[in-house]
Order: sequence, then C-alpha cells, then structure tokens
Amino acid sequence: MAKRLQTEQPRRAARIGICGLGTVGSGTVNVMLRNSAEIAARCGRPVDIVQIGARRDNPACDTSGLNVTREIFDVANNPDVDILVELIGGTTVARELVLAAIDSGKHVVTANKALIAEHGNELFAAAAEKGVTIAYEAAVAGGIPIIKSLREGLAGNRIQWLAGIINGTGNYILTEMRDKGRSFEEALAQAQALGYAEADPTFDVEGIDAAHKLVIMASLAFAIPLAFDKVYTEGISRISIEDIRYADELGYCIKHIGLARRTEAGVELRVHPTLIPQRRLIANVDGVMNAVLVNGDAVGPTLYYGAGAGAEATASAVIADIVDVARTLEADPCQRVPAAGVAEGNQDGPRVLPMEEVLTSYYLRISAQDKPGVMSQVAKICSDQGISIEALIQHEPAEGETLVPVVILTSRAKEASLREAVAQIDALDTVEGEVVRIRVEPLG
Amino acid sequence: MAKRLQTEQPRRAARIGICGLGTVGSGTVNVMLRNSAEIAARCGRPVDIVQIGARRDNPACDTSGLNVTREIFDVANNPDVDILVELIGGTTVARELVLAAIDSGKHVVTANKALIAEHGNELFAAAAEKGVTIAYEAAVAGGIPIIKSLREGLAGNRIQWLAGIINGTGNYILTEMRDKGRSFEEALAQAQALGYAEADPTFDVEGIDAAHKLVIMASLAFAIPLAFDKVYTEGISRISIEDIRYADELGYCIKHIGLARRTEAGVELRVHPTLIPQRRLIANVDGVMNAVLVNGDAVGPTLYYGAGAGAEATASAVIADIVDVARTLEADPCQRVPAAGVAEGNQDGPRVLPMEEVLTSYYLRISAQDKPGVMSQVAKICSDQGISIEALIQHEPAEGETLVPVVILTSRAKEASLREAVAQIDALDTVEGEVVRIRVEPLG
Repeated sequence: MAKRLQTEQPRRAARIGICGLGTVGSGTVNVMLRNSAEIAARCGRPVDIVQIGARRDNPACDTSGLNVTREIFDVANNPDVDILVELIGGTTVARELVLAAIDSGKHVVTANKALIAEHGNELFAAAAEKGVTIAYEAAVAGGIPIIKSLREGLAGNRIQWLAGIINGTGNYILTEMRDKGRSFEEALAQAQALGYAEADPTFDVEGIDAAHKLVIMASLAFAIPLAFDKVYTEGISRISIEDIRYADELGYCIKHIGLARRTEAGVELRVHPTLIPQRRLIANVDGVMNAVLVNGDAVGPTLYYGAGAGAEATASAVIADIVDVARTLEADPCQRVPAAGVAEGNQDGPRVLPMEEVLTSYYLRISAQDKPGVMSQVAKICSDQGISIEALIQHEPAEGETLVPVVILTSRAKEASLREAVAQIDALDTVEGEVVRIRVEPLG
Repeated sequence: MAKRLQTEQPRRAARIGICGLGTVGSGTVNVMLRNSAEIAARCGRPVDIVQIGARRDNPACDTSGLNVTREIFDVANNPDVDILVELIGGTTVARELVLAAIDSGKHVVTANKALIAEHGNELFAAAAEKGVTIAYEAAVAGGIPIIKSLREGLAGNRIQWLAGIINGTGNYILTEMRDKGRSFEEALAQAQALGYAEADPTFDVEGIDAAHKLVIMASLAFAIPLAFDKVYTEGISRISIEDIRYADELGYCIKHIGLARRTEAGVELRVHPTLIPQRRLIANVDGVMNAVLVNGDAVGPTLYYGAGAGAEATASAVIADIVDVARTLEADPCQRVPAAGVAEGNQDGPRVLPMEEVLTSYYLRISAQDKPGVMSQVAKICSDQGISIEALIQHEPAEGETLVPVVILTSRAKEASLREAVAQIDALDTVEGEVVRIRVEPLG
C-alpha cells in the first residue's frame, strides 16, 4: 500500500522557465495559462511558469504577474526552475543556453529543429550524462505528435520508410501553383504577403527546414545518430506550372517531400520535389498543412496530419512535452523515454546511403526539336545506362514554339546512372536547354 | 552521478504473459519475436514472453520453445509475469482475468474495446488501488496511436471535438456502395466473403463496435468516465445507393462516423451515418482503413490514419503499450501516464448530452406525390419546428415511378425538433413511406 499512499500526497508544482517570447513563446504562455486546469489534471500536479527570459515583451502575450527577465541565462541558472523551455531559435546562443540548463541539472523542452538536427547528438549526450531529458516534439511538424508516434506509438515496428510534407510554406506555394495556375514567383510573393514565407525564403523553399525535420524523424525511426550533413536537399524553386500540369495528366501531384527509407544498402535521406500518385491520402494535403506518412513492418502505412506551424499549434507540442517531463520529474532516467528513442548505446542503425546509390523513378521533361531520331537517341542513352522507360509522351508545342515537350517516366534506376543519362541527353544537339527531372515515388 | 550509474546497470528483462492466441495474439507473438532487438533497444531492457495462455494452438504462430498453458488464469497468477496481455476478447472471462492479474500486482495491456468501454471505470479503479497500469492503445483504431495522441500528444489542449471512421467493415461497405454502385446487402456479402465482416455483422454495421471505441476516446478527450450506455448509436444498414448519389451531387460523402463534441450544454456522443464534405481529408479515407480527426483549441484539426484492424497492425499497438509499461516497471505510479488520461479524482468533465438536445444539420429525402402544395406543407412543418431549409432539390422520378424524390438540407436544429418534424412529414397523405434522414456535419 506504500505506492498507493504516495499517489495520494499532493505533488509539488513543476516549475517552468520559458526562454523566448516570439510567436511560439507567446503562444505557449497563452495556452499554458488558458488550459492550466486541464494541464495540471493530466500531469497530476500544478505546472507553474516561474520565470520568463525574453529580450523584449510581446504584445501577443500578457505577462503581467509573471517574473520576466531580460537575461535569458538567468533562467538556465535559476535553481527554482525544473524545466527550461527553449524557444529563442537559432543554433548558437540556443545551444549555449540548453547546455547551461543541462549543466545546472534542468530538463529541457525545445521547439528548435535546427538546434536538434545540427547539435542534437552533443546535447543528448550531455543530457544523458546529467540524467536529464531533452524533449523536442515541437521541432517537427508543429502540433502533430509525430515524434511521440515514431518513438512510442510505433515502438513495436521496424520502420521501413517515412515521407512527409513538412514545410508548410513550400506546400502552400505548390498548392497555389496547381490550383490557381500561378508561377513559382507569384505564389512565393503571395505566401510572403500572407506571412507564410520569410522575406528571405531560402530555408523554406530550398528544403533546409524540411531537411532539419527529416533527420530528426529518421534518427528516431532507424535508431541512427542525427545526420544533417548527410541529407540530400533540393528545393522547389525550379518547379514550373507546366510540370505540375503534365504530372496531373499522368495522375500525379508534385509535392515537396522529405523521405527516409531503410534499404539493404543503407538509409536514404532526401528532400526534393516528388511526383506522388493523386490517389494517396497525403497527395490531398494542401496549403500550409503538414502530414507525415510512416510505414512500419507491423502497422503498415499510417498518416499524421495537422498544422505544421503557428503560435498555438506549436505551443500544443511544446506543452505536450512539458506535461511528459513534469509528470516524471522525480523518475529514474532509465524510466523515461530516451531522447534518441532508444536506450544509450543502441543507436546502431544502418549507415546513410550516398545519393548516388539511391534507387528511384524519374519524371523527365525534354525540349526536343521536332526531328526524326531524337526519341531513339534518348531511348538509347537511357537503355545504355540500364534505365527502362515506362512511359514517353510527346506533347503539343506551346503556341509559337517549335520545340516539342517530351515527358518520360522511368522505372527505378540508380541516381548515378540517371545523372549520367541526363548529362548525355543535355548534350544532344537536338535537345534544347536542360532536362527537367523530378523524382517519382509511389508511396504505397 | 548516482543517476548516471543506475542507467549503466543492465536492467532485468520485463516478463510478459500473453493470454489469447487468436488473430491479435498470434500477431503479437510473431512481431515481438521478429522485432525483439528493436523492442529491447526502445525499452532499455529485454522483453521476454515468459508464458502464453491459450485454449488451443494457432497455426499462424510458432510457439515452440515458449511456455504455453491451456489455463489462462495460470498466467494471471504466475509470479514470474510482470505484464499480463489480455487478448482473449469478450467481457466476462476477460474481466475476471484482468481483475485477477491486477489483484496479483501485474500491469495489464489489453486490445479489448468492449471490456474497456463497458468495464473500464471498474478496472481503472482496481488498478489504481494496486498501483498498477492498464494500457489499451490497441482497443481503438488498431495500429493508429490515437490513445497516445489524445492522452499525451495533445495534452496541452482543451479538445473541442473528435470524429472518427473507426469501423473498417462499415467503411468498406460504404466505399463499395459508392465506388461500385452495390447495394448494402451486396457490399456486406462481399465484405463477408473477404473476411472483413463476421457471419453475424451486427456489431460492425449497427455501430456497437464504433460506439465502444468512441466512448474510450471521449473519456480521454474530455476527462469524463467511460459512458457506453450514453452513446447514441445508429447503423448503416438503411443507407441506400440513391442517398449516396444525391449526397455526392451536393458535394458530400456518406461515412459512418463516431462523433464526440464538447458543447456548452454537455458532451455529444454519437455514432451514425453522416454526410461530410468531400473536400475534407477524412472523406477520402476509404475501404477498411480507419482515421480519427481531432480538433484541439490550440492545435486546430489533426488527423490520424491507418489500419484499424488486422493481426500485425493491432499487434503494433499492443507492443507499443508493452514497451511503455516495460520501461516504467519500477516507476512510482504517479510518474506513469494515468489510464484515464488524468490523475485520479480529475474525471470531472461535462455531462453527456441526451441525443434529443443535440444540435445538428440534416439531409432528408422524401418520396412525394407529384402534386401542388406538397412542398409548402413540408416547408411549413419545418418552419413551425424552427428548422431552416438550406436547400431543397426535386429529383426526377426513377423510371416507371410517379413519386418524386425530394432532398432537403436543413440548417442546424435540435434533434427533438427534427424528430417531430419528420413524424409530421411521415404522416402527410402526399408523402409515401418514411422520410430518410441522415445527419450532416461540416467537420471544419
């Protein structure tokens, strides 16, 4: 009965220090205050914000009555803080702040994908050394509980692959291009006007943000260390409305996909525009929404969908982590879910496969002169590289054009062979400009 | 450094006893044996099947080398078992088995939705008394980690509503009817031939199975006790191909939905055929697949999709629970996630609303004689009950018929008013047969 008595004693409050009062920080404070009764009931104890560290106030968040400091490192060193919530962003000061908090024996909750993707291995080791936790649900796909699903909900599975629409800005742009016939530049300008894209949109449209999220998911799925430097990353800035239309005619959508797959040879880690069959549920995820499709050997395909960004959606994930950590404040570290998804010493999954060795299918678009023999030249190049052509469609030239757009779908081939074939097609006299190439994934 | 040293000591194996070797039991044993290395790495300790209790062997599962008994209660009383996994089904023996296991201090993992929905309140109390856990991820939506998502992943939210396609048999039948133009009876026979439906399909097609799952989710979402006797349940056996076509013309799909919604007046708990907009992602969940749409105040809409049944998909959820419990075998009970989602004494959510008080929109189909004045009679009846008509469409009579099918979409009205209006329309001389009525939900 000793156990029973223990649960009846009221537990002291979990004491939270929040650093950063931007969009996510203010959302977190607002939701924590609004839903404090629900949060305490789920935790089995009150959860108090004992300090906020922020360089400036945020009108989106009323901090009256809260202890606010301009020195964020005061929060990391505050002996009355149990859990430091890092919401300042960036990787330099954030890394130092998190290390300082760990060093003073605090648990850490962070929404910082770049920090985890680039410094997670170091931070997890430091946390393990101190017997504290780092939780990072909010780092991937905003409010969707994908970290928890991969790490705990699918813990019985050998995960085969996962594919995600994990950048809302990019998905918004591609959706606008398809639905409204806008060019990439027009859709980007629209995204910027609506606040979905930054003035410098590089992180989003070139796939760096998605690559951060992908390596975090892949690390959990395959029990491998975080390997941001090994992700192949290609953005969407070269996608044209023409390709979106041709893909549509073939029954495909073009989505910016982060893909991680376990193969005999190693783990594929890649972010790039991808033709996916329209009949897949994930092909219907439009606008700024995110979704991740995970295929486990036991469970088969599962999909997780929701808002990938925004103040309160991200706060939802931050607070889920706070609840998990607050509930287990006194737990032995080995009773907690390990930050890396597996107990220490078990990150022994397969190597990351270099992109050249990846097998995938391709959509190719060639601008060819309307002369006999061009297609046989192209077919021979593919054949010489061991690439089978599954479909070849000549489209009508655009008005006033003499060049014929030719669309080719290939069967699965090694990336290195495909690159060689494309280089040879590019060099043909009868072909103008560069071959457009977009990978194709059945996701089935 | 004491904490650190503790994590370095190898932890003893978690000892599992499995009762039941049917579809889910054999799937669980097979996946546990196949993925034992991954499971141990995620748990931080080996997970051993020390005993299986099953009345008979199952050719789907090789138990050679395993300790199998024909007396399932031996497993509940085995002092070498830490976690009893109940996969025998039913609610009589299963309840006794689970109570016996709890009484002997074991944690319990179960896939039994009927047991939890109908006896969960009693079982959770018994488990809390003994300081042990009951985990039941596999009871709802097979392999989809929806229990974990509701209870932990969305712990920061005040959940507003959830809507699920949570019976694969029913969804298969409705999908076949829509896609192939089959009648309900034909589609049911097809589902039976494929093994998706039982010889007696009542549990599935009349919504009882979905109601079990719905009350479990609602209990977690709203912190209310399990209230199976308070769910309004309506099956799909009266859905006709005609209604599916008319719904399609209006931009809707007919799905069998389990819906739980928080309102000012109380919690709605209902399972019934529902018109939902085709543009919603959940409207595209077809065949035997399941999906649950959850709307939280912070996160907004999130969706969880996957296989709702099947040996290994369900095993995936069973093993996720085993991993959670095995990791925290030595934990103080208050450090574990509470079975009911909130700490004891906190199940103080709102009352369940009687169906008569529920507000919803309606699709009505009337077979009217082709005479002047009928529509004005119908409109007056609706108006007298405070029901606004949003659309009224007269269709062409079927060949050789003289009756005119009239489809009406109403705005939101109280169920009691709608029932009164339908009774009055049914009584009109100019209307033949009974009014067909299907609820409409925007799910937006």
